[in-house]
Amino acid sequence: MFYIDNSSCYSGYLIQVLYYLCPMQVTAGQIADLIGGVIDGDETVIVNGPSRIEEGLSGTITFLGNPKYTEYIYTTNASVVLVDKDFTSNKPVNPTLIRVENVYESLAILMEKFNSNITLSPGISKSASVSSDAIIGQNTFIDDFVIIKPGARIGDNTKIYGQVFIGDNVSIGNNVTLYPGVKVYHNCEIGNNTMIHANVVIGSDGFGFARDEEGKYKKIPQTGNVIIEDNVEIGSNTVIDRASIGSTIIKEGVKLDNLIQIAHNVTVGQNTAIAALTAVAGSSEVGSNCMIGGQVGISGHIQIADGTMIQGQSGVTSSVKGPNAKLYGTPAIEFQSYLKSFAYFKKLPEIVQQIRDIQTSFDIFKEKQKTK
Amino acid sequence: MFYIDNSSCYSGYLIQVLYYLCPMQVTAGQIADLIGGVIDGDETVIVNGPSRIEEGLSGTITFLGNPKYTEYIYTTNASVVLVDKDFTSNKPVNPTLIRVENVYESLAILMEKFNSNITLSPGISKSASVSSDAIIGQNTFIDDFVIIKPGARIGDNTKIYGQVFIGDNVSIGNNVTLYPGVKVYHNCEIGNNTMIHANVVIGSDGFGFARDEEGKYKKIPQTGNVIIEDNVEIGSNTVIDRASIGSTIIKEGVKLDNLIQIAHNVTVGQNTAIAALTAVAGSSEVGSNCMIGGQVGISGHIQIADGTMIQGQSGVTSSVKGPNAKLYGTPAIEFQSYLKSFAYFKKLPEIVQQIRDIQTSFDIFKEKQKTK
Amino acid sequence: MFYIDNSSCYSGYLIQVLYYLCPMQVTAGQIADLIGGVIDGDETVIVNGPSRIEEGLSGTITFLGNPKYTEYIYTTNASVVLVDKDFTSNKPVNPTLIRVENVYESLAILMEKFNSNITLSPGISKSASVSSDAIIGQNTFIDDFVIIKPGARIGDNTKIYGQVFIGDNVSIGNNVTLYPGVKVYHNCEIGNNTMIHANVVIGSDGFGFARDEEGKYKKIPQTGNVIIEDNVEIGSNTVIDRASIGSTIIKEGVKLDNLIQIAHNVTVGQNTAIAALTAVAGSSEVGSNCMIGGQVGISGHIQIADGTMIQGQSGVTSSVKGPNAKLYGTPAIEFQSYLKSFAYFKKLPEIVQQIRDIQTSFDIFKEKQKTK
Repeated sequence: MFYIDNSSCYSGYLIQVLYYLCPMQVTAGQIADLIGGVIDGDETVIVNGPSRIEEGLSGTITFLGNPKYTEYIYTTNASVVLVDKDFTSNKPVNPTLIRVENVYESLAILMEKFNSNITLSPGISKSASVSSDAIIGQNTFIDDFVIIKPGARIGDNTKIYGQVFIGDNVSIGNNVTLYPGVKVYHNCEIGNNTMIHANVVIGSDGFGFARDEEGKYKKIPQTGNVIIEDNVEIGSNTVIDRASIGSTIIKEGVKLDNLIQIAHNVTVGQNTAIAALTAVAGSSEVGSNCMIGGQVGISGHIQIADGTMIQGQSGVTSSVKGPNAKLYGTPAIEFQSYLKSFAYFKKLPEIVQQIRDIQTSFDIFKEKQKTK
Repeated sequence: MFYIDNSSCYSGYLIQVLYYLCPMQVTAGQIADLIGGVIDGDETVIVNGPSRIEEGLSGTITFLGNPKYTEYIYTTNASVVLVDKDFTSNKPVNPTLIRVENVYESLAILMEKFNSNITLSPGISKSASVSSDAIIGQNTFIDDFVIIKPGARIGDNTKIYGQVFIGDNVSIGNNVTLYPGVKVYHNCEIGNNTMIHANVVIGSDGFGFARDEEGKYKKIPQTGNVIIEDNVEIGSNTVIDRASIGSTIIKEGVKLDNLIQIAHNVTVGQNTAIAALTAVAGSSEVGSNCMIGGQVGISGHIQIADGTMIQGQSGVTSSVKGPNAKLYGTPAIEFQSYLKSFAYFKKLPEIVQQIRDIQTSFDIFKEKQKTK
Repeated sequence: MFYIDNSSCYSGYLIQVLYYLCPMQVTAGQIADLIGGVIDGDETVIVNGPSRIEEGLSGTITFLGNPKYTEYIYTTNASVVLVDKDFTSNKPVNPTLIRVENVYESLAILMEKFNSNITLSPGISKSASVSSDAIIGQNTFIDDFVIIKPGARIGDNTKIYGQVFIGDNVSIGNNVTLYPGVKVYHNCEIGNNTMIHANVVIGSDGFGFARDEEGKYKKIPQTGNVIIEDNVEIGSNTVIDRASIGSTIIKEGVKLDNLIQIAHNVTVGQNTAIAALTAVAGSSEVGSNCMIGGQVGISGHIQIADGTMIQGQSGVTSSVKGPNAKLYGTPAIEFQSYLKSFAYFKKLPEIVQQIRDIQTSFDIFKEKQKTK
């Protein structure tokens, strides 16, 4: 569960088509041209809006991504459906199909062309508090009640929404979006094209204490920072702690969902995606291209190999050495093994009864033999 | 665990009685009149303050809600105790009892009569940033450093505390409370009589990406919104993501605890309550009147029937079709079945020993038979 | 997993040594003097910076805390290593060793001597909104866009970063740090020397509702408060709810990690440490000196004895009566018992096969006996 979840309804871009093209209308053929798709049906059919495949109305376009929704392609009244190039129907299909290499990627391409955003005027709000010792790039938007401390450097075309805090000497790249309430502690670095959602905290102190002989904790200062590379997206209310020494590192292309805990000195490898409420404990290294479900726990001081997939709610307590493993359970074991063991776990009452039956029938048998 | 938890100490309203009535005093009879209760004991006994049942002093009122605290009714020095109408004592009880249909509901009624709030003067703080293109209702309070963007519409008698962010075209009803630091992204809708606690995020982007052939993620824009209906309460630091297309919907009367993750395109049905740190993944539909414990995970694209109860830390990975099921475990199974299997899980070392013993005794037996 | 995790890299203070002493240099002997350590090797070796043990370069100092990193002491090029006084090498060690009673404590002591902070000028920002009915101590720093409501009292030498909200009648001690975006609801109390990280919420309403006969929830007002004693540290985005009546209490020396949920009327005992994403449900009492892993769930209305250790992701559903227990699993049982049972859980397919084999061989045997 909680794997990266391209739900069946990512035809969001189509709303944007509407915004831009209405009252103009587009044909199936025009859309196919935009995304390099192949028409299967009437290319002149006119589309004037989007819909979900299960609710599709005539004159709308929708798509089939998740196979769970295949049945709807035979009943939808939508006029156009984006499908995988290899889609085969076992019943007649009414809509015009546009066949593409990768449905979700096509959606993403279309959306890039058509997507709009809330328009922001570049410039610095008079009600922001920006240090005169900070450097602000070109065409950058800084909203009300933002705080930017001395030594901070903000790139070009960056959007900093209201009530964001940017600490001393923070460095932020180009084309970055910080949504309202993001807090970035001193000395942290955020790369280009990164998007950080509301109330995320970057660079708070790692959880490090030394216990004295009375059992009291003494704080171990956390003097490192957080480095977030390019093309990262971070979900709301996620926390990434600064390193005790050195850096906590989120590498290029990483996607973090909401409410995630990344502890001090962790490294998360390129293009790894992590779902909500997962925790990675201190000093662990997560490889690249991993897919980690929601509410997963990863212990401290371990390594997770590239391409590891971890099922939601699993607890990984030791290093995963070979790449592309698939894990489940607490402590986590191989995915299929967990499912097999769990199938027997469910039957434990019957299994125990079976053992008793054997014992009983054996006892009876022995008794009989004796009396023979 | 983590079911809705009316702890034994919800006599909070009584503090309010004190605020309002002191140095005045009320009698047991007057309180019984207010809540339609039946006096069992001295109705003239005077109450001048509240207390917990386990710490009750003479002259105070307390209540018995959770049966775990029953023993204290025989030892408390409190003068008055609210109890269920069917309460039967097996030892002498000193305090005056007020018997009511539903102890907690009576508490709630009393509190509604007596509860006070921090007094807020209606009006818009000069240090708020409110767009001239926003519409603000009557008798509404907008605190310092609030941001309200163009096109937003705020109803009457609504309280918006400091440092809240309200995005473009957001719609907020009447009698709503937004506590400090709440962030509401553009186009979201919040119904009447709804209370949203500090640092909640409503409407951030759903976690949706398409992977290209190089394994890089491309963002799928999330162009829908969040709709929160009337009479909803949402706990601190909870996140509700906007839909990719359409709406993420929190229906009437839903109660969400703190630090919850509601993913894009989820629907949560009427009067469902969810405890802290639970995650509902994308496009799932949770029915009405469900009670969901803390740290539960619900997979994407599934349906949870009305009245389902889910024990804390369970992971629900497939649809729950019949109503009023009770579930436990990861993956979740029927509650009692889980407990039975877990009881045997604890005994697995003994069970395995038992199997070995049978094997051994059978081997010995066979050997003996041979040598006969 | 997720126990308090003094990762191998807490030589953070050394960076501070650099800041203060560079371009000056210190000798191993000078460092040993500072921390009361014993030199084992060349005391004149010069240190001009810190490094991690696994990456150590000549001229740097590092330390060996976690035994997992012992191998690196034989290969590191660092010039000086802090080690436990009882450390024994089984191969030649090149660096000068400084032997100390407790490596982490020595680090903490050194850091206290050398650590620097971002310098803040005391005083109240003109862009803060501070009630004239609030009392602010000496040498206290109040940053931009902070809100302090009437009746609040703030001690001396306290730092309140930007966008913090302090409600009516809140009391805050001396030497407290509130990082950006912290929200403290009315009537809560925060002790001396306490540090609260960004976007933490203190004192939001507990999750308490009474259900009426139609199944609708009625809010039970939460009229108590939160009391945080001295020397507490609270991680980012953690939430501590106010009591319904009375107080939710975080006792002296408690350390809470990020994204933790502490429900209403909970007490957490002295010097207990809790890792990220853990939830303690309503009215439970956690003892002192407990160590609680990440993503643990503790049910409502139970007691956890002093010194209890709870493994990450465990779910504790009943009171823990004897001190110093170690627990694992959901529902949690004794730690070693869980591991033993889990070892057999993994082998369930083989165990079931074994039962089948016994049954089969017994059946064959019986058949043979018959035919004899």
